[in-house]
Amino acid sequence: MSDPDDASAKDRDVIQSIERGFAVLLAFDAELPTPTLAELAARTELSRPAVRRILITLQKLGYVAATGSRWSLTPRVLTIGQHYAASHGIVEVAQPHLTRLAERTGESASLAQLDGADVIYVARVQVRRVLSLNVDVGSRVPAYATSMGRVLAAHADADAVATIIDAGMPPLTPWTVTDPVEFRDRLHETRRAGYAVVDSELEDGFLSAAVPVRDASGDVVAALAYSTARGRHNAADLAESVVPIMLESAAEISKDLAGLPERTRQLRVRARDGFF
Amino acid sequence: MSDPDDASAKDRDVIQSIERGFAVLLAFDAELPTPTLAELAARTELSRPAVRRILITLQKLGYVAATGSRWSLTPRVLTIGQHYAASHGIVEVAQPHLTRLAERTGESASLAQLDGADVIYVARVQVRRVLSLNVDVGSRVPAYATSMGRVLAAHADADAVATIIDAGMPPLTPWTVTDPVEFRDRLHETRRAGYAVVDSELEDGFLSAAVPVRDASGDVVAALAYSTARGRHNAADLAESVVPIMLESAAEISKDLAGLPERTRQLRVRARDGFF
Repeated sequence: MSDPDDASAKDRDVIQSIERGFAVLLAFDAELPTPTLAELAARTELSRPAVRRILITLQKLGYVAATGSRWSLTPRVLTIGQHYAASHGIVEVAQPHLTRLAERTGESASLAQLDGADVIYVARVQVRRVLSLNVDVGSRVPAYATSMGRVLAAHADADAVATIIDAGMPPLTPWTVTDPVEFRDRLHETRRAGYAVVDSELEDGFLSAAVPVRDASGDVVAALAYSTARGRHNAADLAESVVPIMLESAAEISKDLAGLPERTRQLRVRARDGFF
Repeated sequence: MSDPDDASAKDRDVIQSIERGFAVLLAFDAELPTPTLAELAARTELSRPAVRRILITLQKLGYVAATGSRWSLTPRVLTIGQHYAASHGIVEVAQPHLTRLAERTGESASLAQLDGADVIYVARVQVRRVLSLNVDVGSRVPAYATSMGRVLAAHADADAVATIIDAGMPPLTPWTVTDPVEFRDRLHETRRAGYAVVDSELEDGFLSAAVPVRDASGDVVAALAYSTARGRHNAADLAESVVPIMLESAAEISKDLAGLPERTRQLRVRARDGFF
């Protein structure tokens, strides 16, 4: 990455039409749920003929469908993410532990990983008492203001931490840590303590705790997170009563991860034999 | 679709490198979780130089990462599916109704849509008592052997029904309907009754019921489904006690769908204001 010649050699190899294909696919959202070709061209800054060919290709692949002059995403788009879970044993391995953690604590349990300056939920067991909006697998939250983000950044390399800081850390509440030096201090604390508790930095009243999940070689591969509302708990309470349970869950996930190659095979066979 | 000239004109416009890009992305699975370039080339039947350029492109887009000579999918792959939910208000609209249905029945509630010969789960509220394997949003089951599939096929056009039959209907249990004529009879019954109950055709002991969800113009846009185990219920019991509750839920979803344009705007603002 640091060799400019290597980077430009790689740039030459990037296939522009694939980049454009994803640009069109990702242009569908709440603002443009059923766009016309012209709307997609405007949004992606591509020519109409280019967008037309991309739509024909995505239609052949089954990801978009046309109704009159309007285009929409098909449910097949949802199946792309299944390849992540299928190829990352941790998602399958963590599920029963997340369920047990949610049962023991009475609150939702999640597994999250870092993606640039964001954290992405890769698995989640939700408890019915909903906080406010549902958080689904695949949704992202900014790393700097969440306990998962702090745990992941605390164990990531300097580049990853710089990416988070460089993306900007605007105040989301009056309690958000926005100063890079203070943020780095918090990461240091997180590493020393072995967990992070973040109180009302993402949203007022939203309280979360996270601990690292390590693979067989000791590398942190995910954060295990627990979230609640401040009315039901406070930060000290969380550190004392919930974090020890989370550390147990994380250790169990790590243990199961170590035995993964065999498990993955078993799960695959089961998934083929029965659909449920 | 029936005009061959139009089809071949469209074929000429398909961008092969986009097709190949998806072929490489989807080649990652439980069998090839961390493939080498050579393994991906063998799996996709593309040349190594072609696969190398595709990987460099997907890496730039943040969907794959390299560790030594092995490649893996990143969690960003999970975010692609978010665009489906964001652009299809029904997913957001159905969520509270699925939660209420799960609470009233004590079993998992799902929303599913047709994709060729399969049904894809587009939303799901899971009850903790797990049947066997977890079913996630984005996973697919064969349409012919499920209640959701029957409801969707019963209200789909002749081409969609032919797609399901032509894909083959092998017996998954001794009770699977495998005869096309009998299958069409069941679709006719489903349309008349307004619901489908399927008992042990997908997996022995697995019992499910589904009802259609209609949009403002009366078109069936999804199936609402409920699943349980035969020990806890039987088919007659389901039709009598659960289906009426499901029909109520489906009617409520349809009502909310009719008021969607305004709702979608509101939900979008909420999602921006707070992350949870």
